[in-house]
Amino acid sequence: MRIRLTVAYDGTAYAGWQVQPQEETVQGALESVLLQTTGAEIRVTGAGRTDAGVHAEGQVCHFDTPGAAGNYGAGEWLRRFNALLPADIRVLEAAEVAVDFHARYGATRKTYRYQIDRDTVASPFLAPYAWHCPGLQAVEEMSAAARLLVGNLDQTIFATQPEGDRPIRPIDECVVTSGNASPLLTVTVSGRSFLRYAVRGMVGALVAVGTGRSSEDQIQALILGRSRGPRAARAPAHGLFLVRVDY
Amino acid sequence: MRIRLTVAYDGTAYAGWQVQPQEETVQGALESVLLQTTGAEIRVTGAGRTDAGVHAEGQVCHFDTPGAAGNYGAGEWLRRFNALLPADIRVLEAAEVAVDFHARYGATRKTYRYQIDRDTVASPFLAPYAWHCPGLQAVEEMSAAARLLVGNLDQTIFATQPEGDRPIRPIDECVVTSGNASPLLTVTVSGRSFLRYAVRGMVGALVAVGTGRSSEDQIQALILGRSRGPRAARAPAHGLFLVRVDY
Repeated sequence: MRIRLTVAYDGTAYAGWQVQPQEETVQGALESVLLQTTGAEIRVTGAGRTDAGVHAEGQVCHFDTPGAAGNYGAGEWLRRFNALLPADIRVLEAAEVAVDFHARYGATRKTYRYQIDRDTVASPFLAPYAWHCPGLQAVEEMSAAARLLVGNLDQTIFATQPEGDRPIRPIDECVVTSGNASPLLTVTVSGRSFLRYAVRGMVGALVAVGTGRSSEDQIQALILGRSRGPRAARAPAHGLFLVRVDY
Repeated sequence: MRIRLTVAYDGTAYAGWQVQPQEETVQGALESVLLQTTGAEIRVTGAGRTDAGVHAEGQVCHFDTPGAAGNYGAGEWLRRFNALLPADIRVLEAAEVAVDFHARYGATRKTYRYQIDRDTVASPFLAPYAWHCPGLQAVEEMSAAARLLVGNLDQTIFATQPEGDRPIRPIDECVVTSGNASPLLTVTVSGRSFLRYAVRGMVGALVAVGTGRSSEDQIQALILGRSRGPRAARAPAHGLFLVRVDY
């Protein structure tokens, strides 16, 4: 039986999603519950790996239950996970799915949100969840630059560790949103797949526009391959949220 | 020279506002910055003591600068505090005030917000900042009961550690607010002064109404002194925020 989980986590305390020796990871925490519950070493497959410090509101993963030991219904799995997981990881939904469901290969779209705190003094409540950019004012220019990133994009321009295969991956959406009353500015990015660090690289480039260190024209030149100048710093991990995965 | 500070803090890591031996406190962190900056032991006076784990968006306090060593302008104090304080305490505003300003005795109104997460599964992002009450549904009944608390109130009904003096202290506002899309429910309470634990006691009584363990009639009977039955559990500290102090 294959179970699909939707998982939210505060990534602050974790070395990312993927299991690593000697490190606390989210995948490791989920697999530890499966071991405690069934006595079996069961692998959890995630839609994508989130890096150390990155948060998730809707990561998706799946696992296969062993024959007799783990023959619980989806609701029972949800309760067992939430009873045994630490409070900074919660299973929001558990569902029995067909055995051809695959959390990674079946994903058609991932949506990320990046949070930026523009206030002069960083809110202690946003500090773990937003990049503090007090000098950021050119929001219109950021929005214009964000529109340039939509469509077929050579993600290696922003991802400093290209994987080699398929550098050009479409960006479906890249939108800058700012509230009236709130100092919080968000960048929402979605697409079928992302190279490692691509979203944080894109946000770093947009923030450089927002603080006047770069411009729409410079982003355009980067995208068209006409510029090989110095790149903007990658946005830090703690402002990034994996919001949802569609199938 | 007297300086007034507006301070925000995430209370999770602190044993409350007030200095205590062997404990990390918010007042202690501020006084430690004053000692580092001026070499003098300077006392910081807060508008009120928040208990261990309680948060603040707008605590107010004051201190007097020593003659030569601490003769900085208010803006310089703000920068020095934020450079030396941990990220979970931020000085939002610093102002030079008249020497007859007193953060505690001059306060005319304190406003608190209590946050409740009604979602079935507790969000990992709300867990440190909201009481998880998944069974809470009777929001209208809670609102009606909250209205009964406004006006002159014997706070010792809800504060389990009465101080003896002046048990009757007026509540200016007690409002239950729930968003459409959000699982977050908030109780906003304001008044000139509160007995210790009074707000958390009031919220505990309202949540008992919201979960069907109590009723508007039972709250009415409590207030009128006609009931001495078992009291509802006090709401936990981590859902409480000191929002603002007026003068």
